[in-house]
Amino acid sequence: MNIFATIDTPAALIERTRMRRNIERMQQHMNELGVRFRPHVKTSKCIEVAKAQREAGAQGITVSTLKEAEQFFAAGFTDILYAVGMAPHRLPHALELRRRGCALGILTDSVASARAIAEFGRANGEAFDVLVEVDTDGHRSGIKPEEDALLEVGRVLHEGGMRLGGVLTHAGSSYELDTPEALKAMAEQERSGCVRAAQRLRAAGLPCPVVSVGSTPTALAADALDGVTEVRAGVYVFFDLVMRNIGVCTEDDIALSVLTTVIGHQADKGWAIVDAGWMAMSRDRGTQKQKRDFGYGQVCDAQGRVLDGYVLIGANQEHGILSREGEADADIAVRFPVGTRLRILPNHACATGAQFPEYQALSEDGTLRAWGRFHGW
Amino acid sequence: MNIFATIDTPAALIERTRMRRNIERMQQHMNELGVRFRPHVKTSKCIEVAKAQREAGAQGITVSTLKEAEQFFAAGFTDILYAVGMAPHRLPHALELRRRGCALGILTDSVASARAIAEFGRANGEAFDVLVEVDTDGHRSGIKPEEDALLEVGRVLHEGGMRLGGVLTHAGSSYELDTPEALKAMAEQERSGCVRAAQRLRAAGLPCPVVSVGSTPTALAADALDGVTEVRAGVYVFFDLVMRNIGVCTEDDIALSVLTTVIGHQADKGWAIVDAGWMAMSRDRGTQKQKRDFGYGQVCDAQGRVLDGYVLIGANQEHGILSREGEADADIAVRFPVGTRLRILPNHACATGAQFPEYQALSEDGTLRAWGRFHGW
Repeated sequence: MNIFATIDTPAALIERTRMRRNIERMQQHMNELGVRFRPHVKTSKCIEVAKAQREAGAQGITVSTLKEAEQFFAAGFTDILYAVGMAPHRLPHALELRRRGCALGILTDSVASARAIAEFGRANGEAFDVLVEVDTDGHRSGIKPEEDALLEVGRVLHEGGMRLGGVLTHAGSSYELDTPEALKAMAEQERSGCVRAAQRLRAAGLPCPVVSVGSTPTALAADALDGVTEVRAGVYVFFDLVMRNIGVCTEDDIALSVLTTVIGHQADKGWAIVDAGWMAMSRDRGTQKQKRDFGYGQVCDAQGRVLDGYVLIGANQEHGILSREGEADADIAVRFPVGTRLRILPNHACATGAQFPEYQALSEDGTLRAWGRFHGW
Repeated sequence: MNIFATIDTPAALIERTRMRRNIERMQQHMNELGVRFRPHVKTSKCIEVAKAQREAGAQGITVSTLKEAEQFFAAGFTDILYAVGMAPHRLPHALELRRRGCALGILTDSVASARAIAEFGRANGEAFDVLVEVDTDGHRSGIKPEEDALLEVGRVLHEGGMRLGGVLTHAGSSYELDTPEALKAMAEQERSGCVRAAQRLRAAGLPCPVVSVGSTPTALAADALDGVTEVRAGVYVFFDLVMRNIGVCTEDDIALSVLTTVIGHQADKGWAIVDAGWMAMSRDRGTQKQKRDFGYGQVCDAQGRVLDGYVLIGANQEHGILSREGEADADIAVRFPVGTRLRILPNHACATGAQFPEYQALSEDGTLRAWGRFHGW
């Protein structure tokens, strides 16, 4: 493993071959469904990754913070949707981005926020592009398709001089499912709820050009998206063990792993201690309640081959405890001597990536390149 | 709360008054016990925090990565203990730090690593200061006090020309306890096990000047530390909800909180949506199995007063779901309108701090100052 001799551990490794395959798979599916695809770059927070998504056919990006908007705009991305409910105190920042040429769309799900947006926009001579967030699965934010508030928010924006761009939903509860049938049903629920909200706005004489839906599981499960104009998804670019348990990828699709070094053993317990603790893996235990619990991650060899049954059963800040599931491995210290390099597949790529200031991107030709990642707000 | 109008959310807020009180409490206890105190700066990764610890009487610092060692050394800290088992590939970096004048101590718990240290040291004419890690509670790394390997590692280092500095242990399983009696017993187990290891090394004719123990719960619970020369602890500087449940602090001692803004509601469910999701709070659910589960954190008003019963019951990347425990709060949207600023006390200060590139330190006089924090390795 000469290639890894140049980098220290823990390191966040991207297998570019896998990443490209994941990007192509999603984009092709979106093309077949005839919808625009707007990837959520909160997963990677990385310019190079977003560029690969754009080159494959993505149109515009979705962000979760205005810092992401700033960073991607500085890198030449102009069509940006900030898909978290707009806090009124952030309107001056949004205005500033728009005045600098960023086509920034914003989101609201309440009359109070819609009024604040319209008042601020009018006071500053700016017609913000605003989507109304729709709740199609009860998991977080949004207005239910049949609620009166939907039309009220639409009117406050439209009559207040803002550009009512349409409706947006995210069926985050798809993360709790794990059969193709349930995922398909959730994709249809997400689609039909969002389309219904659009129909109600239009029936009330309000504009609604955009119907934006998506989560990685529903985007991949959908086989028809009538009435939808745009899909958003984020974690598909890397995939992870949570997605593996949901059933939308296999371990061999997971493009992000943590390169780690064995630093010790408790041989009598069958433990190897590695330098990937929770600071590297994150505290995400997303597989804990899924059909297979991978602890803090699935162990692979340095080449990325899954070592079935070996997982991180525990994590302290800079220590990971590697063990075999079931019977303890009496040969652990021989199997993984001090200095051994391994890779750990993460439960949740968004959370694990966030622990690192940069990725190490591994090309097909075996070269490594550092790709920066944003941190903070 | 004009003071917070100048900063965006989410922000990692340090109450300096509380931090100073926490630092003084620990230092005074160590002074009374007659031991040196070497704080673990992995909790804050912040120069200003470590300086406050040093000004109160701390001698030297403990780090969990060589990046921390680099950063604190650059800021004038020279007595640094790297308290994670030494991976042989990091020896050139450790050597370089020592050659630049850093009194860097390192750690090992295996014959394999000890040999690698001694060989590398001899080949480079460097007598590394090395402690042997002792396992006093079975929770992670280290050699048990009665194991043969303890003396073997000691001999490999001493006879290999290294400076055998002594023994070190960390009773991390103290985090699983929650009564004063159990904590006192664990503190005594940690002390006696480490002292026993020191006695064995000395009886074998090996040097063992340092006997280093510690975790925040055991350090605070200990009422006698005979034979111990040095104590290490980290999270006490901020405290958190895990420590509150263990019983070594109250909510009013917690010096780190996340300042957040209400961005929406699901009034029928009694939810407020805030902009502190897991990216801000971390995915740490350390209170999940403790006597009181605080979800993703305890809600306080903007002045830091605990709003009893209000917690973050869920978290997505940039969304926190705030709810009252028990019966839903039908007035949630009136109680916390959009734009309301709140503070959230974290489950685990080390993990929450790590999500932020900087802290906002709040003085008694009401001024805010940005304090940088290291990220990555």
